[in-house]
Amino acid sequence: MKNRKLTHIDTTGNPAMVDVSEKAITRRTARAQAIVHVGSEIMAQIDQQELQTKKGPVFQTAILAGIMGAKKTSDLIPLCHPLGLEDCSVEIKAEGENIVITSTATLSAKTGVEMEALTAATVAALTVYDMCKAMSHHIVIREVRLLEKTGGKKDFKF
Amino acid sequence: MKNRKLTHIDTTGNPAMVDVSEKAITRRTARAQAIVHVGSEIMAQIDQQELQTKKGPVFQTAILAGIMGAKKTSDLIPLCHPLGLEDCSVEIKAEGENIVITSTATLSAKTGVEMEALTAATVAALTVYDMCKAMSHHIVIREVRLLEKTGGKKDFKF
Amino acid sequence: MKNRKLTHIDTTGNPAMVDVSEKAITRRTARAQAIVHVGSEIMAQIDQQELQTKKGPVFQTAILAGIMGAKKTSDLIPLCHPLGLEDCSVEIKAEGENIVITSTATLSAKTGVEMEALTAATVAALTVYDMCKAMSHHIVIREVRLLEKTGGKKDFKF
Amino acid sequence: MKNRKLTHIDTTGNPAMVDVSEKAITRRTARAQAIVHVGSEIMAQIDQQELQTKKGPVFQTAILAGIMGAKKTSDLIPLCHPLGLEDCSVEIKAEGENIVITSTATLSAKTGVEMEALTAATVAALTVYDMCKAMSHHIVIREVRLLEKTGGKKDFKF
Amino acid sequence: MKNRKLTHIDTTGNPAMVDVSEKAITRRTARAQAIVHVGSEIMAQIDQQELQTKKGPVFQTAILAGIMGAKKTSDLIPLCHPLGLEDCSVEIKAEGENIVITSTATLSAKTGVEMEALTAATVAALTVYDMCKAMSHHIVIREVRLLEKTGGKKDFKF
Amino acid sequence: MKNRKLTHIDTTGNPAMVDVSEKAITRRTARAQAIVHVGSEIMAQIDQQELQTKKGPVFQTAILAGIMGAKKTSDLIPLCHPLGLEDCSVEIKAEGENIVITSTATLSAKTGVEMEALTAATVAALTVYDMCKAMSHHIVIREVRLLEKTGGKKDFKF
Repeated sequence: MKNRKLTHIDTTGNPAMVDVSEKAITRRTARAQAIVHVGSEIMAQIDQQELQTKKGPVFQTAILAGIMGAKKTSDLIPLCHPLGLEDCSVEIKAEGENIVITSTATLSAKTGVEMEALTAATVAALTVYDMCKAMSHHIVIREVRLLEKTGGKKDFKF
Repeated sequence: MKNRKLTHIDTTGNPAMVDVSEKAITRRTARAQAIVHVGSEIMAQIDQQELQTKKGPVFQTAILAGIMGAKKTSDLIPLCHPLGLEDCSVEIKAEGENIVITSTATLSAKTGVEMEALTAATVAALTVYDMCKAMSHHIVIREVRLLEKTGGKKDFKF
Repeated sequence: MKNRKLTHIDTTGNPAMVDVSEKAITRRTARAQAIVHVGSEIMAQIDQQELQTKKGPVFQTAILAGIMGAKKTSDLIPLCHPLGLEDCSVEIKAEGENIVITSTATLSAKTGVEMEALTAATVAALTVYDMCKAMSHHIVIREVRLLEKTGGKKDFKF
Repeated sequence: MKNRKLTHIDTTGNPAMVDVSEKAITRRTARAQAIVHVGSEIMAQIDQQELQTKKGPVFQTAILAGIMGAKKTSDLIPLCHPLGLEDCSVEIKAEGENIVITSTATLSAKTGVEMEALTAATVAALTVYDMCKAMSHHIVIREVRLLEKTGGKKDFKF
Repeated sequence: MKNRKLTHIDTTGNPAMVDVSEKAITRRTARAQAIVHVGSEIMAQIDQQELQTKKGPVFQTAILAGIMGAKKTSDLIPLCHPLGLEDCSVEIKAEGENIVITSTATLSAKTGVEMEALTAATVAALTVYDMCKAMSHHIVIREVRLLEKTGGKKDFKF
Repeated sequence: MKNRKLTHIDTTGNPAMVDVSEKAITRRTARAQAIVHVGSEIMAQIDQQELQTKKGPVFQTAILAGIMGAKKTSDLIPLCHPLGLEDCSVEIKAEGENIVITSTATLSAKTGVEMEALTAATVAALTVYDMCKAMSHHIVIREVRLLEKTGGKKDFKF
């Protein structure tokens, strides 16, 4: 039951970083997903301007925002360790009324990169929101989740 | 149908900021929400260590991360205008197996603060994830949405 | 001859910000340019992959990098005032063996936005370099210059 | 006794920004000081390499770090409002075994700039420490204090 | 007497980073301290709202600000190397009229982490100042110092 | 012809980071240059206030801005990997009507540091511009180029 406690809280009840200085460096990967429900009207617009070219500005802007956001993870999440990502990718596709964002993060490090993958997906999702919000504020980001991670004590698959 | 287009794409199909230089300064507010489904096991842990004191470290860390994240909105979202927030708040409460995060942002400005409110809620949600992930990676952030905004061309309520 | 001195050096010879607190707020614009000489081989590649779609990834990435870079101007240039840009645009086109980047910055403020426009153009140019450097390191960024500015004591046109 | 409470804690006991959205914009100034005790050996070195030119590298680097640090105040202090400084200056002089740093910050805003002045002085002090630490780690930063502020509800002078 | 010179100044008298590229990676630790004199009135307030819960908002906010500040050290101190901290902790306790902040930083690296520990303590101290300043501006940060460091050419203990 | 493609574009035509996770760590160096044409009037001013002391404020400020800018490279260039520089230097000299900036960057890493060297030179050039622009806006940054790099698949010399 060792990993059943709140690791970021020290014995005095205060927030704390997790000390990873004695851990081994292993190759870490993580994959995360965010689904943005934009509705049929926005999707129709995106279809016309965007999917036509397969790499139009909304998706490309969101991809870049996600990658750049992943590099800022330890700036955003107070107790995250600063990590020098060796790879990060964001893929976006339209599915029905949803925009589905998948991100990956890779690094040889003493700690995992799941927060980097989750941050990439989330910032990409917020960027889609920002670029489409003039058409509707009924956009909802739903199901930001970790899909998979490898390289730590225990691999994970949702 | 004027606001039915992708405002962040210029006539050549490239990403573009929206020019707000000629707009009037008005008082803007926005309120957003993120729901983090943590499941019963994590909630039991949080109950013991956290709710007991009403302001324990997970919630407080997430609140601060959300407020600090809101101040970084224009760093994260490529086409957002930099805005000097005059108020930002984040509230977090436990509801069943969910942690419900509500954020507000306020500013007198030429453009709205909905992305700031959404970023606050989202970064707070990612921070909850980070601090609880040692217990489970089955956490899912869902229903990040704008609840309300005032002060622009048209008020909005979800 | 008042503006013929090094304004960023104080009477003791040390670097100093310029005090703009007593100046009036006026609408400021600036337009800058950077030319990136990439050579014929890279241009051929770009032609195939890029111009075909009119908004392909190299130019779009550079446009976004330029806009985001402009928002970081006061982080980069030690004595620049932090300014909340109200508009910033970057346009890129291919001309012979050159990629020509034009940027604009707009703001109602107590000081000019020429450094923001120059930073936008320069960061966009560095991004073009980064994305093309696997093909050649003989790329040269040249002729980064201010094209025009309005709204200060004296308008300028190169 | 209104200002005798912890303004950054809300009614539920959680950290909170202070809402300044309804306050009037007034011209704010603040002046702060940090004293760095470096001891006689370092001071002798500094004398030879530094004071001789009146603007040598340790002091100039610290001045610039202080000014740039002031621009990052709201990034560093969780509940500070982001403010666009209109002036910031740092002066440094040697006095006996101490290096005395004085900073000012100026802005027309809805809230005061004392944290900006204090951050400028403190970051300058840390920079002096960094540049001299190869000679001794017995350096002590002491007496970081606000000297004066104007423009808010009540002027202050230490 | 090799380490008796100003290492951050090159042979032409200009500021310079120290080249650590040929140094060996060793495990580095540093511990620093900042003392904030808040006076009896503030301490009485803090006692009521804060110590009662052992982890109330002022101390927790300052702890988080210190840890996040440590991650920004190389952004703040011009000639510091960027380092990916593997652990950083901040502890705060009340002693008489003082708030005593102790920080640690840990990393396997080619250079020491004393500036990270000092920055953590200093930013935590500034945050305490910010959160208490509505009660008094007579707060003084004093005695920011390095307590100990290990892992470099020579261990240090104050 | 393997390195003749646009490495930062994936098979779907979207921008992508280059995955370096499987590459070996080698010692990388890069050297870059920026030339700033300031004209005879500014050069006369600089001569009087600056070269006289050999390390006056314009050059020193630009040197520091360049070094600090290099540390921000991966924040500025969207698809750059975050790298923890082990050395970075900037040298500036006056030559006729030009200011010649040379930068170096050094690191043991899985990828090269040419963008860091180029960013250092460019940000230093922008800083020279900023500090001299009150005298003339006819300043032109020209010939930002990579001079040399070592440690990757193939060394390069311009």
